[in-house]
Amino acid sequence: MRKTYSIGLDFGTQSGRAVLLDLESGEIVAQAVHVYPHGVMDEALPDGTRLPPDWALEHPADYLAVLSETIPAVLKKAGADPSEVIGLSIDFTACTMLPVDAQGTPLCLKPEFEHVPNAWLKLWKHHAAQAQANRLNAVAEARGETFLSRYGGKISSEWMIPKIMQVLEESPEVYEAADRFMEAADWVTMQLTGRETRNSCTAGYKALWHKREGYPSPGFFRALDPRLEHVADEKLSRDIYPQGAKAGELTEEAARRTGLLPGTAVAVANVDAHVAIPAVGITEPGKVLMIMGTSTCHILLGREEKLVPGMCGVVEDGVLPGYFGYEAGQSCVGDHFEWCVKNCVPPAYFEEAESRGMDIHALLTEKASRLAPGESGLLALDWWNGNRSVLVDVDLTGMILGMTLQTKAEEIYRALIEATAFGTRIILENFEQSGIPVRQLYACGGIAKKNPLMMQIYADVTGKEIFIAKSDQAPALGSAMFGAVAAGKDRGGFDTIFEAAKAIGKVEARSYRPDAAAGAVYDRLYTEFKTLHNYFGRGGNDVMKRLKAMKAEARG
Amino acid sequence: MRKTYSIGLDFGTQSGRAVLLDLESGEIVAQAVHVYPHGVMDEALPDGTRLPPDWALEHPADYLAVLSETIPAVLKKAGADPSEVIGLSIDFTACTMLPVDAQGTPLCLKPEFEHVPNAWLKLWKHHAAQAQANRLNAVAEARGETFLSRYGGKISSEWMIPKIMQVLEESPEVYEAADRFMEAADWVTMQLTGRETRNSCTAGYKALWHKREGYPSPGFFRALDPRLEHVADEKLSRDIYPQGAKAGELTEEAARRTGLLPGTAVAVANVDAHVAIPAVGITEPGKVLMIMGTSTCHILLGREEKLVPGMCGVVEDGVLPGYFGYEAGQSCVGDHFEWCVKNCVPPAYFEEAESRGMDIHALLTEKASRLAPGESGLLALDWWNGNRSVLVDVDLTGMILGMTLQTKAEEIYRALIEATAFGTRIILENFEQSGIPVRQLYACGGIAKKNPLMMQIYADVTGKEIFIAKSDQAPALGSAMFGAVAAGKDRGGFDTIFEAAKAIGKVEARSYRPDAAAGAVYDRLYTEFKTLHNYFGRGGNDVMKRLKAMKAEARG
Repeated sequence: MRKTYSIGLDFGTQSGRAVLLDLESGEIVAQAVHVYPHGVMDEALPDGTRLPPDWALEHPADYLAVLSETIPAVLKKAGADPSEVIGLSIDFTACTMLPVDAQGTPLCLKPEFEHVPNAWLKLWKHHAAQAQANRLNAVAEARGETFLSRYGGKISSEWMIPKIMQVLEESPEVYEAADRFMEAADWVTMQLTGRETRNSCTAGYKALWHKREGYPSPGFFRALDPRLEHVADEKLSRDIYPQGAKAGELTEEAARRTGLLPGTAVAVANVDAHVAIPAVGITEPGKVLMIMGTSTCHILLGREEKLVPGMCGVVEDGVLPGYFGYEAGQSCVGDHFEWCVKNCVPPAYFEEAESRGMDIHALLTEKASRLAPGESGLLALDWWNGNRSVLVDVDLTGMILGMTLQTKAEEIYRALIEATAFGTRIILENFEQSGIPVRQLYACGGIAKKNPLMMQIYADVTGKEIFIAKSDQAPALGSAMFGAVAAGKDRGGFDTIFEAAKAIGKVEARSYRPDAAAGAVYDRLYTEFKTLHNYFGRGGNDVMKRLKAMKAEARG
Repeated sequence: MRKTYSIGLDFGTQSGRAVLLDLESGEIVAQAVHVYPHGVMDEALPDGTRLPPDWALEHPADYLAVLSETIPAVLKKAGADPSEVIGLSIDFTACTMLPVDAQGTPLCLKPEFEHVPNAWLKLWKHHAAQAQANRLNAVAEARGETFLSRYGGKISSEWMIPKIMQVLEESPEVYEAADRFMEAADWVTMQLTGRETRNSCTAGYKALWHKREGYPSPGFFRALDPRLEHVADEKLSRDIYPQGAKAGELTEEAARRTGLLPGTAVAVANVDAHVAIPAVGITEPGKVLMIMGTSTCHILLGREEKLVPGMCGVVEDGVLPGYFGYEAGQSCVGDHFEWCVKNCVPPAYFEEAESRGMDIHALLTEKASRLAPGESGLLALDWWNGNRSVLVDVDLTGMILGMTLQTKAEEIYRALIEATAFGTRIILENFEQSGIPVRQLYACGGIAKKNPLMMQIYADVTGKEIFIAKSDQAPALGSAMFGAVAAGKDRGGFDTIFEAAKAIGKVEARSYRPDAAAGAVYDRLYTEFKTLHNYFGRGGNDVMKRLKAMKAEARG
């Protein structure tokens, strides 16, 4: 019997993954992963040119290899015929950007630029444009630029404009030669369709674009650098497509590369966090999706644009068309537990884990789960990697208190889990205080699927029921759903992403419901957390920043 | 050639040690240790009777075994003749106390009481009299008892009166049968001389006795319990001897037990920390001795009695005759590093230490010593076991801040060292602000001898030169010196402890001098420490106490 499939491609930091979605069953029937041959280049270019600290580049050819490797692989695994694939779509890390020439060729692939670091593709976690970001923020603040308030008052060095500024200042010849700067997401989609269709998600969250107001004014850009005055028109694009739009159809060349048929529908690209919203079936406001991994990203829909202090951004059509998509984040979640395991767990625990054939995290979680709320006597602030949302301050650092000579590793481990839960509650209350109600939580990502203790603590701390994504590949699934929307109902897909979300988006049967007794204890701990959050984070005592400055001095 | 010796006996928590001091060379020429056969009894009496939590008892016969084992052993090792030993003296943990009958026999050794826990000898760290201490403090405060201010405002549950109260309340028949309650130090000395000679050190620091004012008033004791009204006269003694006084001479029986000659001079007993003062040659005010181990005890002489807020005690003649001896303490010093090593150091460090044949502390110290002051970016409060001096609060707990994902075990280790140094500086400044100048520091104990990094940090943080005891057995050496004073100059000893200190007391040739550049960085860190010390310790935010209360609730 003839089947109908859609393909989703999720481009991560180290690899790209394809999933084949069976549109009748709503199940992923095949997956394939391709690790980027060049990986993250943070020490040298392929030709050996050394890179300064904080750089992080990737090779655009690696992404094309993902297309040519994974798509044929999933077709083969499922025994699917290319004619049965009606659409595809991709999601990407962001802001991951590159300069291209008028033909869309990455400058770094041209012989005259292959030795120039600034001609290469800058990965989201390229952190060498901090000086530019600082200047951008100072100028914007001095000019009273209102766009700042859409981004919690601060623009990250990871975003598009600081990265362009770095290219201009350090390698003006690259800036000059660049016909435009593109998100990698849009560039890969352009490789599929042969035309440029920038998506509103990256434009809005990363490039300061606003559906009604456009980019910041030429006057603002001129204040940054006279050469940047017309950067929006000269190097970016004002032609932005809402999420859920069709980008085009597969070209002959892309069809050859992927093994799919020319004319297969392609949706505009997406960001790996935001794209997961329909994959858990969220189609309306009031439901926050937490994409939980080393860090956590919170996505929420709203019917109107509210300015929420300290969030990451609000973008119209940035998540689902017709809605304002709100984004917030915690810069350190799973990374806390990795840090703890790497630095603060004694040998006996590893020996016990090994002898019982357990993962060390599983052992610590098992031991931590035997503690009642409040029993450790510990309280931590989840700022090991700064604070991304509400305080928006990279110079904040971690804190833990309550230690006694009896304090054990699993108690610290649990205190770190609780700290991230308290941090989440701060973010949720911040939304609610800004007039954006939050009724339920949804979670996807490795932690959400694997750590019931943590999810129960989140439910108890926030007092909200938490639903877990059914798929362990929610972003790739979301992309496949957008691909089916690009194909449309007539070809076996969907007319809107809302229809797709209702048909395909799923959560696990088991949800986490708040326990009243635990919640009462956590309410008291949360009050303590908030007091310390404000004391250390809102100017009561800036000791963390002063210590960080002293550390920088000591390291010269 | 005929020699002249004195013997010092240091009774610790797990064992007793004898040293043989050659009075001509000033060197210890032999040592012997005897581990108490019964050890610390914290679970059951010798007959199997179970003990409740927080109890800690010892067996008086174990102390007598130390006398009969170690003294002959040091004589034998050195080839010394008993006639060459002119004096001896002991020092002890305190308050370590026991009830005795009119003949001085411990009640616990009498058949009718051997099954009664309260008839036994309570070790200093017996913590089951906290309820009694709380009541004592409440009553003393309500009555405005001035003695409280000599003890930093709070009487510890480890001290004499709360322990007596526990006996009275739980086992009135033991209280009734007790002719008196004695410090173990005085009881052992009585076993040597045949007469009771209570020392002013334990009477003053542990039993609330004052040279001019005596014990608290009968009215105060009556307010505690009518049966206690005359406890000082009925169960203690007002006949108190200054440190440096002669207690008596060895009885025939004691001579048989020890292998020494009858008539050998015996000094009044001492406490293991205070007795070390002459062993490092301190004979005047302005010099603080830090006895550093799991915890640190600070001893300082003064010419007058000043009330220093938050110190442990001030006692006239309590350290050296004619001076006021001040005591302060940090309840957790070496214990921090033990905690760190036991709970917060990953396997790779242990593997490296093993492969290099190093102690794990040595490895962490080596790695920590490569860091410059301020380089870790960390700051800790040294309250893993509460705060003994200045704040005097057992409910305070540890804190550390400044962690990032790059923070390593050796950085935490160093931050804990620095925290104890900052805690010391708070104590020193507290003395100075009370009009008691501190010019130099002296240190003895394992840490002082073995950890140059730590001692240098202490010098840098306090801005004071630190001299290290030459002997690694400063308390036992101090006792031997007091023994030689009891014998007197005519018999080859000394007429005063001051003469003995000048002749025998020694420090290492190498001292630790403050480094100005490091000191400047530490001044800034100390300012941060003090702010947090006051915020968490002086009511700015009592979160530590509230967390501790919640922990107790959670544990039921």
